[in-house]
Amino acid sequence: MTPEEFRRLGHQLVDWVADYRAGLAQHPVQAQVAPGEIRARLPAAPPEQPEEMQAVLTDLDRIVMPGITHWQSPRFFGYFPANAPLAGVLGDLVSTGLGVIGLSWQSGPAVTELEEVMTDWVRQMVGLSAAWSGVIQDTASTSTLVALLCARERTTGYAMARGGLQAEDRPLLVYASAHGHSSVEKAALLAGFGRAHLRLVPCDGTHAMRAEALAAMVEEDLARGLRPCAVVATTGTTATTALDPVGAIAAVARRHGLWLHVDAAMAGSAMILPECRWMWEGIEGADSLVLNAHKWLGVPFDCSLHFVRDPQHLVRVMSTNPSYLQSAADGQVKNLRDWGIPLGRRFRALKLWFVIREQGVAALRARLRRDMANARWLAEQVAAAPGWRLLAPVPLQTLCLRHEPDGLSGEALDAHTTGWAERINRSGAAYLTPALLDGRWMVRVSIGAEATERADVAALWQAMRREAEGGPAG
Amino acid sequence: MTPEEFRRLGHQLVDWVADYRAGLAQHPVQAQVAPGEIRARLPAAPPEQPEEMQAVLTDLDRIVMPGITHWQSPRFFGYFPANAPLAGVLGDLVSTGLGVIGLSWQSGPAVTELEEVMTDWVRQMVGLSAAWSGVIQDTASTSTLVALLCARERTTGYAMARGGLQAEDRPLLVYASAHGHSSVEKAALLAGFGRAHLRLVPCDGTHAMRAEALAAMVEEDLARGLRPCAVVATTGTTATTALDPVGAIAAVARRHGLWLHVDAAMAGSAMILPECRWMWEGIEGADSLVLNAHKWLGVPFDCSLHFVRDPQHLVRVMSTNPSYLQSAADGQVKNLRDWGIPLGRRFRALKLWFVIREQGVAALRARLRRDMANARWLAEQVAAAPGWRLLAPVPLQTLCLRHEPDGLSGEALDAHTTGWAERINRSGAAYLTPALLDGRWMVRVSIGAEATERADVAALWQAMRREAEGGPAG
Repeated sequence: MTPEEFRRLGHQLVDWVADYRAGLAQHPVQAQVAPGEIRARLPAAPPEQPEEMQAVLTDLDRIVMPGITHWQSPRFFGYFPANAPLAGVLGDLVSTGLGVIGLSWQSGPAVTELEEVMTDWVRQMVGLSAAWSGVIQDTASTSTLVALLCARERTTGYAMARGGLQAEDRPLLVYASAHGHSSVEKAALLAGFGRAHLRLVPCDGTHAMRAEALAAMVEEDLARGLRPCAVVATTGTTATTALDPVGAIAAVARRHGLWLHVDAAMAGSAMILPECRWMWEGIEGADSLVLNAHKWLGVPFDCSLHFVRDPQHLVRVMSTNPSYLQSAADGQVKNLRDWGIPLGRRFRALKLWFVIREQGVAALRARLRRDMANARWLAEQVAAAPGWRLLAPVPLQTLCLRHEPDGLSGEALDAHTTGWAERINRSGAAYLTPALLDGRWMVRVSIGAEATERADVAALWQAMRREAEGGPAG
Repeated sequence: MTPEEFRRLGHQLVDWVADYRAGLAQHPVQAQVAPGEIRARLPAAPPEQPEEMQAVLTDLDRIVMPGITHWQSPRFFGYFPANAPLAGVLGDLVSTGLGVIGLSWQSGPAVTELEEVMTDWVRQMVGLSAAWSGVIQDTASTSTLVALLCARERTTGYAMARGGLQAEDRPLLVYASAHGHSSVEKAALLAGFGRAHLRLVPCDGTHAMRAEALAAMVEEDLARGLRPCAVVATTGTTATTALDPVGAIAAVARRHGLWLHVDAAMAGSAMILPECRWMWEGIEGADSLVLNAHKWLGVPFDCSLHFVRDPQHLVRVMSTNPSYLQSAADGQVKNLRDWGIPLGRRFRALKLWFVIREQGVAALRARLRRDMANARWLAEQVAAAPGWRLLAPVPLQTLCLRHEPDGLSGEALDAHTTGWAERINRSGAAYLTPALLDGRWMVRVSIGAEATERADVAALWQAMRREAEGGPAG
């Protein structure tokens, strides 16, 4: 494809994206296809000869689009907001267009230095002290894995340079909330700790980790000759946005030399609001934290911000320095390959730069406050409606709720709950996530898509009442 | 930013990318900035109020562009080709524009199913049997880490579900070539094996792993009561594109139950050429392999293809299944979150789809053959020129060479080598990578940028002669 062909097709695809975003409300939110349906429409083998790009664009509409669940829709209330504002789309276009790879500082100095400055902008936006250094990882799953690797190596005095985890005599332990994200368990298992060495700390009535329970578990494990290594606290758990008491957990961690990693993947965005910062009070006592700019804050996926207090330790754990990556600048620069798992690096800082400048921090704050007000409004409706129940506090923008008709309980109630949620999802009118809470199904309503306004939340509430109160006819 | 503003700015940025690509040859290949220079031009704090996008685009030219090393330049001969053809840029624009996240099949059915079909297209293109299943990871570093985690868990019978690596009595060992990529060592250390349990197998005169040396090491380790776990073979090493004998290594692996992972990150692209497939003969005996479509093949970064023989084992090692990610479709679909570390997933298959259809496999083959012919041509020039020496065979598109004036050796020769390479890089006329080989500096010339034609290689050769033969005046 020549630059001139790209110019013509690029304009066409920019228009396609503009039309798509302008018309989002017209799509059923959840893809209306059956498993295997998209695959069956695609040729089983690649083309030997070139095809017309117009045929590809036709197939994009005809084959791919029916298989898209519309995360940018104003009626998307599933999982978490994964906002991809259009300024960020432009930043990413520049990144792919440049095709520069940040293998090392020298291989693209701007890739490294813009990332340094952008992570520092976000640090300031969320009120962290200058003692933190940031880097962009792909996802919180990866950031949490890197954090547990750093914890493992700190506790063992860099066993990786000797016999690794397999040469350690006294087992290392990781502590996490019973309501922590699945990625915490995954990271602990991948890092080699083993499920038997992952301790799930009990929670209080708001589903937040009980710091005194953590302290008791750590002391008991120490008494048994085991080695407490790390604790993962969560600011805004996935199911209910519960808030672990970071300060109290940090005190336990400090007392016993545990690495404290804070998973603020979702709620970290809210820390741009000074009125929310109590939610992670004590954060300065943590060793690492992750905050996904690609969630509510609104930078196109993937853009997970991983902050650490001791970058030298991170680099010591993650670095490699083969000759073909060395350069004369090495003593004076950061080589971000030594801050994570991948060697190659996309120019992801561009989309942060575009979004923050196009929006300004004040507008980002205003959007998050809008979403929290919408969540409070819906919480009020739910609390006031007969038969409906909120199952957890709503500190941010996620509601956990159930419709509990008289006489329904146990599995019948579960069937009712997943039934009405599934009917809404299948209808395409909105998209919600059912989830288990305390062993029973409930429905999560996650408010915060960039396009979601009060009217969309009101329409959702109407649809919920219609589908749930209308009974399980379906 | 409204869709209409996006339309206007998007056209402008598409033109910007088109102009950039059309004018690539005018840029000095290596960024001409000093450490800290880009950072110093950026505001230290984020803007409170929105800025004009035109100001951002001005700063893109003024601040960012001087800090770009131009990987897409026809005179880029550094590291490896990281081609980002314009059709792939369009595919990526659609991906970011849609803003869909493949958390699970249901959260974007097309994300999963197009990825299944595209990885299968590539499988066919490189001549792998239907016994392989593919998934897209970010980089080969990550794919290799995932492979070693799978090896670890197969050897231990899923120790992760019990005490992890720390509860194993007899240490597990990983074998790799002394010329393997730095990511192999990094993966072994991160997976917890420990450096003391990583065995570097000696190489032959072509820098390829000696299979009989591997066999001897494994047998000796077994006799000592240790547990050989995995071997990583490389098809096309980083420094010299050396070719480990995959078939012979697979035989050793089979005999002793080792996991065989093949790192074909760079050379895997060449397997679309039937005449190159001897280079990984025996590949069907491997357990996993990685092939970076974002290198020579030409799909914008990141797009690392990870193929496995036993996807059920991969899923058992990598899966998590929290309630909020479950859906009615689960029994019938792939959830690609269970095929790697991250939970979230970009729609990366789109760029593969766009590139393969726009090019057709025949044109991809023709481009790779052009690059290999250019490499052979340059190898002939080097071999025929007095004082110049090729240091390794040139099976693909990478040359390892040195200018060795009479009387120069040792550190003086090193200074001469890095000197002329640095002068070329600093001049901006071309970009080369110096690297160590057998303890001495040499220069790698990696041919294969999409835009590189014979004339560019000829101009490079002239620059090399000028800078090296003109002496170290500089």
